[in-house]
Amino acid sequence: MSKGQLSINLATTRGSWGFAEAVDGCLRHDITAIAPWRDQVEAIGLKEAARIVETNKLRVTGLCRGGMFPAADEAGRQTNIDDNKRAIDEAVALNADCLVLVVGGLPGSSKDIVDARKQVTDGIAAILPYARENNMKLAIEPLHPMYAADRVCVNTLSHALDICVELGQGVGVAIDVYHVWWDPQLAEQIARAGQMGAIYAHHICDWLVPTKDLLLDRGMMGDGVIDLPGIRAMIEAAGFHGPQEVEIFSQDNWWKKPGDEVLQTCMTRFKTVC
Amino acid sequence: MSKGQLSINLATTRGSWGFAEAVDGCLRHDITAIAPWRDQVEAIGLKEAARIVETNKLRVTGLCRGGMFPAADEAGRQTNIDDNKRAIDEAVALNADCLVLVVGGLPGSSKDIVDARKQVTDGIAAILPYARENNMKLAIEPLHPMYAADRVCVNTLSHALDICVELGQGVGVAIDVYHVWWDPQLAEQIARAGQMGAIYAHHICDWLVPTKDLLLDRGMMGDGVIDLPGIRAMIEAAGFHGPQEVEIFSQDNWWKKPGDEVLQTCMTRFKTVC
Repeated sequence: MSKGQLSINLATTRGSWGFAEAVDGCLRHDITAIAPWRDQVEAIGLKEAARIVETNKLRVTGLCRGGMFPAADEAGRQTNIDDNKRAIDEAVALNADCLVLVVGGLPGSSKDIVDARKQVTDGIAAILPYARENNMKLAIEPLHPMYAADRVCVNTLSHALDICVELGQGVGVAIDVYHVWWDPQLAEQIARAGQMGAIYAHHICDWLVPTKDLLLDRGMMGDGVIDLPGIRAMIEAAGFHGPQEVEIFSQDNWWKKPGDEVLQTCMTRFKTVC
Repeated sequence: MSKGQLSINLATTRGSWGFAEAVDGCLRHDITAIAPWRDQVEAIGLKEAARIVETNKLRVTGLCRGGMFPAADEAGRQTNIDDNKRAIDEAVALNADCLVLVVGGLPGSSKDIVDARKQVTDGIAAILPYARENNMKLAIEPLHPMYAADRVCVNTLSHALDICVELGQGVGVAIDVYHVWWDPQLAEQIARAGQMGAIYAHHICDWLVPTKDLLLDRGMMGDGVIDLPGIRAMIEAAGFHGPQEVEIFSQDNWWKKPGDEVLQTCMTRFKTVC
């Protein structure tokens, strides 16, 4: 079985390019799959972004991002639900494979992670009928436990899949190697996700040693310690053969380099170490 | 059931004090339980450290640290095993409750975390007979997954307890809230640890938002998001009523303050938020 396609999450070239420039860059390198962020889409306008996608026959491997459900009060939670419905509309307009959910952490001054997790499940449940009506898949992305407080309180694939089981059809997972590589249950949970038909996306980058910043110091594939071919083999064995989407937040390194150099490096590493 | 005793891990006052000064400081504040680090013991000499402990009837809630088992080759692994046996000797001389094991991460340029984990289990197995002969308990401390690469590849309580089951009597866990607070399996795994009689230590501090450094930005109890009374209740319900040991690495904050101020704050927070 040959390796799947390469997709570029447009966070990776955020240092140089907005939506249109990033698409032009990808096309120069014969890359035809992308995953944009909502702010990048908004900057150019949804209609124009959708036109660019359609004209160039791009595959959109995901729209980043919905989620951020927990809030300190009911009004805040409703605001978040409404925003997620708009994100579903945008994902539909872009013909995205899925809307990636970065589900949110502890709201306000809360120390109650159990309650935050309940708010997340309730929030996804609230938008799921709308997502189903619009045939848009929701991909819960479990984030590394170091983001449990301020970004995402769903921190293992196991937990994300439990939510999928609870909520049913239309909810799956985005598996990002950066967030899950350390998990001793990784192999069994990827296999479980495959059996559920719940793998909607496969994100790649690398974990650097040392890691200097909790959010913005992700590594290029091959520069860190993640066994990328090993995890790819698990995901392929679980039945997912979609694109591997490169998503690198790198304030002090890759975001400072020219976009074409970043893309060229992604392509080379994709061929050699992924 | 009243709250257990307060213990001070001497990393907490590392900014101001060596072993003897830290003990004097603790005694000034009527704190009679400590947990020193091996470098602090070495600096004053093991005999003198043991004399100070005995003279002042101090409880030593743990010696930090053994572990760091994985190595790139067999000679390196043997060196690590030998060093761990010396650490057991030191823990015995100090009459410590346990030797805390910070087990190690990926050796050399390895990307094979499964193998690193096997090396950890093999390493503990290699020192366990010696620990048993000397009646010294070994406390595996699962560390937060953000340390999986460079410090500790045992990152959940569940995984640590699996190792305890495999190796048998004399191996348990040190539960540090900083490392486990995010775990969706926390309640069930603490209960399991209690049933096994495997809780050897209970460490406290707090998770700050934002966290500015992966290693040296731990918070004082009450300054972060961890539900300290909630986790304490789980640990007490599991049958452990030993001291709560304050262990704070804080390069830019608490390590810059006078030791007496740090201890006074620990005592106040211990009474009010733990």
